[in-house]
Amino acid sequence: MNTSTGAWTAEQVATMEKLRDAAMQDPYALNQLRHLTDNIGPRLSGSPQAQKAVEYVADQMRALGAEVHLEKTLVPHWVRGAETAELVSWPGMAEGTVQKIVLTALGGSVATPADGLTAEVVVADSFEDLKKLPAGAVRGKILLLNEKFDKRLAAQGDGLSAYGQAVVYRGAGPAVAASLGAVAVLVRSVGNADYRLPHTGATMYAEGLPKIPAAAVTAEDADLLKDLTSQGAVRMHLTLTPQTLPRVQSYNVIADWKGSEHPEQVVIVSGHLDSWDLATGAIDDGAGIVVSMQTIHLLQKLGIHPRRTVRFVAWMDEEQGGSGAETYAEEHASEFKNHVGAIESDLGAGHPIGIIAAGNPQLEEWLGPVAHALVPVGATTVKMSEDAGEDVSFLKGVPQFAPNQDSRFYFNYHHTSADTFDKVVPTELNENAAVMAVLAYALADSVTPAPR
Amino acid sequence: MNTSTGAWTAEQVATMEKLRDAAMQDPYALNQLRHLTDNIGPRLSGSPQAQKAVEYVADQMRALGAEVHLEKTLVPHWVRGAETAELVSWPGMAEGTVQKIVLTALGGSVATPADGLTAEVVVADSFEDLKKLPAGAVRGKILLLNEKFDKRLAAQGDGLSAYGQAVVYRGAGPAVAASLGAVAVLVRSVGNADYRLPHTGATMYAEGLPKIPAAAVTAEDADLLKDLTSQGAVRMHLTLTPQTLPRVQSYNVIADWKGSEHPEQVVIVSGHLDSWDLATGAIDDGAGIVVSMQTIHLLQKLGIHPRRTVRFVAWMDEEQGGSGAETYAEEHASEFKNHVGAIESDLGAGHPIGIIAAGNPQLEEWLGPVAHALVPVGATTVKMSEDAGEDVSFLKGVPQFAPNQDSRFYFNYHHTSADTFDKVVPTELNENAAVMAVLAYALADSVTPAPR
Repeated sequence: MNTSTGAWTAEQVATMEKLRDAAMQDPYALNQLRHLTDNIGPRLSGSPQAQKAVEYVADQMRALGAEVHLEKTLVPHWVRGAETAELVSWPGMAEGTVQKIVLTALGGSVATPADGLTAEVVVADSFEDLKKLPAGAVRGKILLLNEKFDKRLAAQGDGLSAYGQAVVYRGAGPAVAASLGAVAVLVRSVGNADYRLPHTGATMYAEGLPKIPAAAVTAEDADLLKDLTSQGAVRMHLTLTPQTLPRVQSYNVIADWKGSEHPEQVVIVSGHLDSWDLATGAIDDGAGIVVSMQTIHLLQKLGIHPRRTVRFVAWMDEEQGGSGAETYAEEHASEFKNHVGAIESDLGAGHPIGIIAAGNPQLEEWLGPVAHALVPVGATTVKMSEDAGEDVSFLKGVPQFAPNQDSRFYFNYHHTSADTFDKVVPTELNENAAVMAVLAYALADSVTPAPR
Repeated sequence: MNTSTGAWTAEQVATMEKLRDAAMQDPYALNQLRHLTDNIGPRLSGSPQAQKAVEYVADQMRALGAEVHLEKTLVPHWVRGAETAELVSWPGMAEGTVQKIVLTALGGSVATPADGLTAEVVVADSFEDLKKLPAGAVRGKILLLNEKFDKRLAAQGDGLSAYGQAVVYRGAGPAVAASLGAVAVLVRSVGNADYRLPHTGATMYAEGLPKIPAAAVTAEDADLLKDLTSQGAVRMHLTLTPQTLPRVQSYNVIADWKGSEHPEQVVIVSGHLDSWDLATGAIDDGAGIVVSMQTIHLLQKLGIHPRRTVRFVAWMDEEQGGSGAETYAEEHASEFKNHVGAIESDLGAGHPIGIIAAGNPQLEEWLGPVAHALVPVGATTVKMSEDAGEDVSFLKGVPQFAPNQDSRFYFNYHHTSADTFDKVVPTELNENAAVMAVLAYALADSVTPAPR
């Protein structure tokens, strides 16, 4: 059954199918991902690797014949330093020993003194729990915010909601802790794994409150601290020596596959090029970059020139504030009326079950034929949502899209040292490449633009 | 159906059932495990924590009314130091960057110079593969032995075989690499997880060959090195600063619950008290210690005094040579004719599906009523095997036993920083405690001793 809504001709539907099948066979995305992760490595915004990645991706896009523009954007330049902690006293300890605590500085954290600080640890399981502590209980202490990641929700496929519930502690922890006089703040890692892995991520400071050092401890270390502090006084020596350097110039990589009829009308296909620094950013978000690159590669390879421009964008600095997307939004606001859609992949490379759309509710029906073309990939659903991605959310009024990915395992690895090339399953990567290519083409070549 | 072989009276079978039910309800083992792991911490042989654990366990056994003997044994005293590595050059690198390699020193490794060494990396996927390299290919280089752990075998429940296949690289790697002139050796971690976790473990040096520094890299880092070295020259800076200090005196903790008729006849119930130093040794082998402690606790609590002595043993130094078990074997060899059985638990605390027995094939039938008593626990099988545990294997001629544990997940955590208290499922720990207590009682109170 063809559920055509009249937006595409039979020939166009056949092109979708051709793109889909080509995407499933092509090793381009996987090879690009291997290079980005293994050869270039971690791509924290402001780092030499991020710059190398900008140049590399731009070169690759030029090689395909796309029109490349490097869009300047000022990005944070935060550099991780030493990050160690050990318990120096606790109930029942063997004399003369310490106990190592595994943690990682949160992005943007200030440093402790170079030789660390030592203080008692106070644990609160939630902001609610924190309110119940006696006045002054946190003053001069290291506060651990021990909110647990909801594993059940993640296992049911809604890792994003689990993440949303816990990540407020990472974001607001330093301000809340500082307001109570804490000398440092720890958060239980916002993530799903049980492998003593700390999950980094950006944090924030509040105006008018002291900036205190902030780190994420592993789930195991949080449990340990909870147990030991319930027995008596626990003192920790904590050393974090990150540096916040002046913002540096970086770039969004923009590469246009020009439209044959309406080059001024634009469909964005995108991921973010920066990653955290603990690993090589394969699922966050190398995967989003390379499935977007593969869209341009396939259009070139198959000689497809849609009516409208397909614009590849490698966003810079999604992780530490989204300055790349913000810059784009500022510079292109007047063109948004001609942005017919913006797709972003930033939830890994798990099997896509369909398409997420944010915008006019009519999109759900309108996308029927696209989802139909993706039946062999298993990406058969269209789900309306509030948003479709951090970067494209800056593009106000533009219909936004994302592959709807299986995220059950994403938060096991997200923002950890284990976000590496091997975490991506080649077939699933190509399934996502198929969704990106087919959807981008459909938006760019439809008889009438997507409803907005 | 009672499959009695005549070794136990109906009343004795009822006692087995009482022990079983008590074991499943009692929080003793779990509480002891929490203390050993959270409060005392890592228990590497020769460390203050190992000594603290000796004293703690001895005190707990005395409190139960057991006759405690600390048996002196000299143990290795190896102390982990810094362990860092980074790639300093590789194909396609961003200038001025390094790429971190996650690794951990193997137990017993010698050190690099304090400021590290730098050399090219050569990768061989197996000893077979190594032989195919040109002469001199390894000389002056860092050799990575990249044998993969067989995940399928582990998933099928035979993690021990998968471990056995890969662990020879960890053991023999330094000798093989040194014989080819390598300046250091890396092995792919012998383990099952994909969370950038290095797995430590003991290694060996060969007489007459240089001792070279030895470390385990994570599976991810091994994959990275494999990929990059296939593209061109890769140089690594490697720093390992462990120290091998003089052997120190430590102890096996021996606690006898004296037999009412034949105190000279002994059934051993045991685990090993030392652990690796990266974590707190919950599954390896805190679990084995506490289920053995729980056996004595239950005999005391229920007022059960079997004919023969039930001897709790906390072996020292299983991980770095088994000196505790060796000492015991030397000191008690003349008593082995009166050792009617030796049980060891050293494969974690996964659900037990039955009993492993090593010795006279008649044991399989003889143990029928014991397995029958364990039906509600799900530990219903008796499996004959070559051996039942590293420590009890020193007790030549003595029938040896172990719980037959679900080890599918054991090698995810084994010898890593993630072997922590939370990895033990309380119900499964008690299932193992039930197997240990029922089996120990059955061996100690049977009308005639187990066949040997």
